[in-house]
Amino acid sequence: MLIVGELINTSRKQINELVEARDAAGIKKIALDQFEAGANYIDINCGTQVFDEIETMEWLVNTVQEAVQAPLCLDSPNPKAIEAGLALVKYGQPMINSITGEKERYEQILPLVLKYQAKIVALCMDDHGMPETGEDRMKVARALYKGLTEAGVPEEDIYFDPLVKPVSVSNNAGIEVLDTVRLITEEFPRVHKICGLSNISYGLPNRKILNRLFTVLTMGMGMDGYIFNPLDKTMMGFVYGTQALLGKDKFCMGYLTAHRKGMYAE
Amino acid sequence: MLIVGELINTSRKQINELVEARDAAGIKKIALDQFEAGANYIDINCGTQVFDEIETMEWLVNTVQEAVQAPLCLDSPNPKAIEAGLALVKYGQPMINSITGEKERYEQILPLVLKYQAKIVALCMDDHGMPETGEDRMKVARALYKGLTEAGVPEEDIYFDPLVKPVSVSNNAGIEVLDTVRLITEEFPRVHKICGLSNISYGLPNRKILNRLFTVLTMGMGMDGYIFNPLDKTMMGFVYGTQALLGKDKFCMGYLTAHRKGMYAE
Repeated sequence: MLIVGELINTSRKQINELVEARDAAGIKKIALDQFEAGANYIDINCGTQVFDEIETMEWLVNTVQEAVQAPLCLDSPNPKAIEAGLALVKYGQPMINSITGEKERYEQILPLVLKYQAKIVALCMDDHGMPETGEDRMKVARALYKGLTEAGVPEEDIYFDPLVKPVSVSNNAGIEVLDTVRLITEEFPRVHKICGLSNISYGLPNRKILNRLFTVLTMGMGMDGYIFNPLDKTMMGFVYGTQALLGKDKFCMGYLTAHRKGMYAE
Repeated sequence: MLIVGELINTSRKQINELVEARDAAGIKKIALDQFEAGANYIDINCGTQVFDEIETMEWLVNTVQEAVQAPLCLDSPNPKAIEAGLALVKYGQPMINSITGEKERYEQILPLVLKYQAKIVALCMDDHGMPETGEDRMKVARALYKGLTEAGVPEEDIYFDPLVKPVSVSNNAGIEVLDTVRLITEEFPRVHKICGLSNISYGLPNRKILNRLFTVLTMGMGMDGYIFNPLDKTMMGFVYGTQALLGKDKFCMGYLTAHRKGMYAE
């Protein structure tokens, strides 16, 4: 299971204030807290800083790496900002969020994946826009798989993101994602699957509950990566418990460790 | 989704005391509480009362039906006790828990299913004992399906129980159940699936958490019935939330109703 800690994102008000003030101690604390809570990767996204995103990305990458020797996931609409961050990565294999089947994005991001031997989040959308059904997503996934692997990207470095849409808008939004994860697992068993969750609950109350339940459901289908807030102890507890139930936690040791840490005491 | 409220079971100390004292008011309250919390069926099990189980079953069936006009699920190792209860059922279609592929049990229970046109919980075990893999369970399920439908039991009245074993004993215990539910859904789309959950967490801490997570996982595979405690508000909230995520709750109305009832406020 690959957990990407999502908190360092300037679209969050608290983070934006820390970044604007170049408050290195504040950013370092959030990076360290996420790592200690179980994040394997720390996401950095400063896409809202459109006027000086490159300089901000560089500052964030350096600052986070002063706090934790964790690999980073670099997230931006701007390939130049991603590259500026990649050039400064010191620890482990970086991850790029994201490539799509859209021609322009694809051609800008693929050279970065190859140059930096990065893991790549591959969104199941292309120039035809947002897919509806699982089969629509699979068409994009097949094209991305072919292109990426033929260019030399190892299967294990590809993380398909099925694109999560709100269940409040379409009753089938959840089931289409579950179908996609199952189909990808069947067709590309060595490729990974990852997603952000919060779109699923958009427009509904008690969003945290729905996000957690959708994590459990998607894990049951074979999802093996998430971009979420690892400081949500209940969510992390659900992940450990579900791993045990799925037989992916030998002798339930991960679950028992989480129990001893008081993760289920809240 | 069919929820069978499991609380009226004399293996529970509190229930045994109420039954020994013939405390009708106490039993009625528990029946009514379960019904109001969302149970579709009320389970009655007095199998621990071996010396006067028949008379106890009759008293319980009458007492519960004075409190709620709910259909009943009658649960006993003793076919005579089940029949005594069935003869007194007044509301809706009764349910028998359970038939198995064991020759003696099968021959005793089948006539009762037919005579009372009951729904039947069919446990995936036979004279060869407890199954290990999903495919072992399917062998029993196929034999039970053939026998029951050829005898005239409608497919819709069959509820296969895949048999849940502790994940603490075998790492694969959970995944074997998930496989079985998926295989039954593919092979017998009109047949239902039901299970009790508590075995899954046997021997581990925080059992309620694991039972709830396993409910979500099995719902994702197509399980459509549970025998559990409907007074566990968090569990009921998980069921409503998961139904919404699976597109089985039009416009999320069930989820929104649960939200307005404060089910997520705990």
